[in-house]
Amino acid sequence: MSIKYPQGSVSISNSTDLAQPTVFGDRGMTLEQEINESNIYYRNHQLAVVYKKPTPIQIVKVDYPKRSRAVIKEAYFRQASTTDYNGVYQGYYLDFEAKETRRKSSFPLGNFHEHQIEHLAACLQQAGICFVIIKFVVLQRYFVLPASKLIGFWRQAQRGGTKSMSLKFIEQFGYEVKSGYNPVLPYLEVCQQLINLIGEKHE
Amino acid sequence: MSIKYPQGSVSISNSTDLAQPTVFGDRGMTLEQEINESNIYYRNHQLAVVYKKPTPIQIVKVDYPKRSRAVIKEAYFRQASTTDYNGVYQGYYLDFEAKETRRKSSFPLGNFHEHQIEHLAACLQQAGICFVIIKFVVLQRYFVLPASKLIGFWRQAQRGGTKSMSLKFIEQFGYEVKSGYNPVLPYLEVCQQLINLIGEKHE
Repeated sequence: MSIKYPQGSVSISNSTDLAQPTVFGDRGMTLEQEINESNIYYRNHQLAVVYKKPTPIQIVKVDYPKRSRAVIKEAYFRQASTTDYNGVYQGYYLDFEAKETRRKSSFPLGNFHEHQIEHLAACLQQAGICFVIIKFVVLQRYFVLPASKLIGFWRQAQRGGTKSMSLKFIEQFGYEVKSGYNPVLPYLEVCQQLINLIGEKHE
Repeated sequence: MSIKYPQGSVSISNSTDLAQPTVFGDRGMTLEQEINESNIYYRNHQLAVVYKKPTPIQIVKVDYPKRSRAVIKEAYFRQASTTDYNGVYQGYYLDFEAKETRRKSSFPLGNFHEHQIEHLAACLQQAGICFVIIKFVVLQRYFVLPASKLIGFWRQAQRGGTKSMSLKFIEQFGYEVKSGYNPVLPYLEVCQQLINLIGEKHE
């Protein structure tokens, strides 16, 4: 079940991870669903432990009916102060945001919030493996773009540069991920490449 | 503002991290508040990026009043599938749960949920720095207990062992943290000790 609200989409589910069957391939899944499926696969195969953080909610009113559980009667969606996903892979801290666009040749920076950029910069400074996953829905193409490239572009845009990343920029500085079966979106392969690139960091 | 509900306590706040003044020492703060304050200190001083995850909420009904933001009209607290805190410190993934007790000589395992133990085990297997922070409220003593010790104790309890960790056990296998000023609860010092102990891991 997915509810649309102004700031985006929240996935609402009662099912536990293990009870959820693996969905094969992309049958109209959102990027969030694809990443969640991939994370279940990675966890079940002990390859990584990555979760989407719950959507932050500001609770205003709670009822406590007798003999039954508390009911939230008034609450509001809040903007997250961090990215949506984080976790651990072979000792490395992973932190990323995922965004999709229906555009075909560019990705507008307006899809990110300043606090997300700041959070990615803070995690990079702590030697985390930080990136964004961008899905071009119409093209059915997925890219992992290192946070350093996004942050660089963002800062140039703040100094008056262009406000939209071209597909060419993303192709040049990102890593394309081909959607598959197990997992649906094998983004860990790119994480391993990013780790290899900065291999000396932990040594 | 803190709302009590059956499974524990949720901190509800609209304030941004930076706007919040640092509270000095323990003036009746809950363990959660003490850790949140410490995390703000660590983030502001670029020492670590650690956040408490939002409380997971199952949303049932949302209203969309015209010209104003969405209002959640019916929702329920859900049990988290992970621990409450995670983040990154100098390239290391940190993952922990925090619990307080008013007991003076033991800490009952009933304070943990099985899925939290499983999550800690899964993160340990990925070489995360995993632990629990236990506060003995009446004694005003704080301990960082490595997840490996908690998991070992938990598994013995499942095989019929005692269901409560004695203060002695926690003193022997945990690391006491003295509450201070900046930060309120300097738990990163223990993280550094844990990292030193397993120093060869990343080499």
